[in-house]
Amino acid sequence: MPNTVVMKFGGTSVADAQRIKRAAQRIVAQREAGKRVVAVLSARGHTTDELINAAYEVSAHPDPREMDMLLSTGERQSCALCAMVINDLGHKAISLTGSQAGIVTDTSHTRARIVDVKADRIREALAEDKVVLVAGFQGVSTTKDVTTLGRGGSDTTAVALAAAVKAEVCEIYTDVSGVYSADPRIVPEARKLHTVSFEEMLEMASSGAKVLQLRSVEYARTHGVSLHCRSSFGDAPGTVVVDEEQTVENPLITSVVHSVDEALITLTGVPDRPGAAASIFTALAEAGVNVDTIVQNEPKGDGVVAEVSFTLSTDDLAAAEAALGPIRADLELAGVEVDPDVGKVSIIGAGMRSHPGVAAKVFQVLAEEEINIEIIHTSPIKITTLIRADQVPEAVRALHKAFNLSVEDVQAEGGFAEQSR
Amino acid sequence: MPNTVVMKFGGTSVADAQRIKRAAQRIVAQREAGKRVVAVLSARGHTTDELINAAYEVSAHPDPREMDMLLSTGERQSCALCAMVINDLGHKAISLTGSQAGIVTDTSHTRARIVDVKADRIREALAEDKVVLVAGFQGVSTTKDVTTLGRGGSDTTAVALAAAVKAEVCEIYTDVSGVYSADPRIVPEARKLHTVSFEEMLEMASSGAKVLQLRSVEYARTHGVSLHCRSSFGDAPGTVVVDEEQTVENPLITSVVHSVDEALITLTGVPDRPGAAASIFTALAEAGVNVDTIVQNEPKGDGVVAEVSFTLSTDDLAAAEAALGPIRADLELAGVEVDPDVGKVSIIGAGMRSHPGVAAKVFQVLAEEEINIEIIHTSPIKITTLIRADQVPEAVRALHKAFNLSVEDVQAEGGFAEQSR
Repeated sequence: MPNTVVMKFGGTSVADAQRIKRAAQRIVAQREAGKRVVAVLSARGHTTDELINAAYEVSAHPDPREMDMLLSTGERQSCALCAMVINDLGHKAISLTGSQAGIVTDTSHTRARIVDVKADRIREALAEDKVVLVAGFQGVSTTKDVTTLGRGGSDTTAVALAAAVKAEVCEIYTDVSGVYSADPRIVPEARKLHTVSFEEMLEMASSGAKVLQLRSVEYARTHGVSLHCRSSFGDAPGTVVVDEEQTVENPLITSVVHSVDEALITLTGVPDRPGAAASIFTALAEAGVNVDTIVQNEPKGDGVVAEVSFTLSTDDLAAAEAALGPIRADLELAGVEVDPDVGKVSIIGAGMRSHPGVAAKVFQVLAEEEINIEIIHTSPIKITTLIRADQVPEAVRALHKAFNLSVEDVQAEGGFAEQSR
Repeated sequence: MPNTVVMKFGGTSVADAQRIKRAAQRIVAQREAGKRVVAVLSARGHTTDELINAAYEVSAHPDPREMDMLLSTGERQSCALCAMVINDLGHKAISLTGSQAGIVTDTSHTRARIVDVKADRIREALAEDKVVLVAGFQGVSTTKDVTTLGRGGSDTTAVALAAAVKAEVCEIYTDVSGVYSADPRIVPEARKLHTVSFEEMLEMASSGAKVLQLRSVEYARTHGVSLHCRSSFGDAPGTVVVDEEQTVENPLITSVVHSVDEALITLTGVPDRPGAAASIFTALAEAGVNVDTIVQNEPKGDGVVAEVSFTLSTDDLAAAEAALGPIRADLELAGVEVDPDVGKVSIIGAGMRSHPGVAAKVFQVLAEEEINIEIIHTSPIKITTLIRADQVPEAVRALHKAFNLSVEDVQAEGGFAEQSR
């Protein structure tokens, strides 16, 4: 039986008739190379934004179930159009909705999670030598309603299907040619990474790298799906995401990742009693707010008030402020301060585990640039600093240069590794 | 249990945010008047045309299955948006795809026929006091593919659901306020008809009246669904389509209906042997061409060639010409003449059955206008004339005036009835 490849095309890769044809040709090329192909497509270009605008034109708070019904149409259109082209190119193609493809989710509209993949219909179509096009970003809930997986959910669709059909690789085609050591728009000498480990990719996705959705990387790691991020506008290989044991040696630092879509909320006068923090973050979670880093200062005695700060995406800011209103009254907080002009810069590298002193160097580099660090957050393979949003580009450039990331194979000889020996 | 009303809104009635809100308000008004409501919506404004254009941008001959997947998205968007508004207005609403609504069709993509309506999910939602919005024009085939019912198919969806849920009435909301004695754009004094019989409505729909799709009228008659055609932009009652026995007395002539989207094809040198006509019209039927009137001249002896003419919609002209190519060669026809500049004018009235002489008057009126009749076709309640397309407006005006159709209750006293006594 021939090997199966899952190919995922993002919105810019299917934005117009010309690009849909190009995606179809890429799919056909894989088919003609003897592969079975399942392709997952996003909505064309700005379709999803246009549909969201249409919803807000009729409703200030669109019903989530109906929002999903509305938004799920965009990907179906892309798939139907691409299937037409593939049929014209002399191959059999069939487009399936998320529901028809067997993507079963929970009932959390607009942010549903996949609970099962019943890929029988896909397997049948593949066995009939058909190319299968699946509408990304969507599924059908256990109560038979159309659901969507949240922004970027098409990556998760692709990975879930790759796991279900035991694909040899899940190729993610986007408008960038892979994963870079930093955003090339900020650091022109940034280097394309040939491989990154799942652990690094997870940290990168959660730190602002937009090339892959965090959930899709988690899903791929859990289910052992090999990921390949590459450009839909060229043939060069991109970046392969692999298990850590497959990498020859872990680089000390792989990349500098940043995000300016961050906000910092500080709650002052938080009563120092059990359950106060719990009630704050429960309210935020119920409002669907993803809280990133939480910092609490030490209260100076029994019953003395504390200060709690946390970061979140600016996308969630309105929802967070709405959720904090009742909490502020309940807990008699002194204040809720919102700072929307912060950004975060992270350096990531699996080799960091075995090399102490990286954090010290980060602080030194930023200090030399006179960049003030507001919050620091670390994991075994990541150091994240929260700084002013307008200082993010210079911080990225300084760190990328200091850790010598534009040079290939820096991990063994150059950069920080050399200095720390 | 409260009565159920099915309300169908056409594309112009949901074309933008303002109109979707207006449709939602009408639905809510029915709800607040104590009715259970199932609403069937078409795609917004030009959505379907835009999707068709997108398909032809990528493919000269779009695959019909994929065309259905593509086109079915438009109605889903309308329904989701309208459901959001109804939810905002304080009522519970749920939108369903044709598939979710249980519209089961055959597998004839782009022109599927309904084979079953499994309205359990609609009934459940109604029992939960929800307004149910159903995407018109579509269903799911017996092989679980998305199908569409052909242009205007939303009327059929509405009637089929009205039959399935035993609705007291199926209201068809459009941009015209009912069925008129002639097209008011051509005959300004045309009169809105309070009632027409199913038989008349069927003849009108098949003669070019666009207010209701022929299939939906057939379905309504077969299943005893009461139809009410009315304007979505005003509150005045429209036209009710009723069983003939319910009309007090049949009007002699109800209306003049016309169409300029007609073409005439004449095949010359058709061999006069059994099966020749059958092979011609079988080929056309297989190409999906709806042939209207067929005229064959008498061959003048054994084996002598004949001439066959037939009319069809200009929409089907390209398909007909393509289908006739092989037939022309097979039967060694002398020629295939295509005349795309014809139109038809029909007068319709259930009372015609019991009043001879209507046809004679039609010919006399047209003769006085120096309008040449190319083909005549009659049914017990209709007389259709095929004339030059550019003479259609004057023919409609002359017939409307001659039969005195702008006067209410003309059937009993005035117009032709008077003259024929």
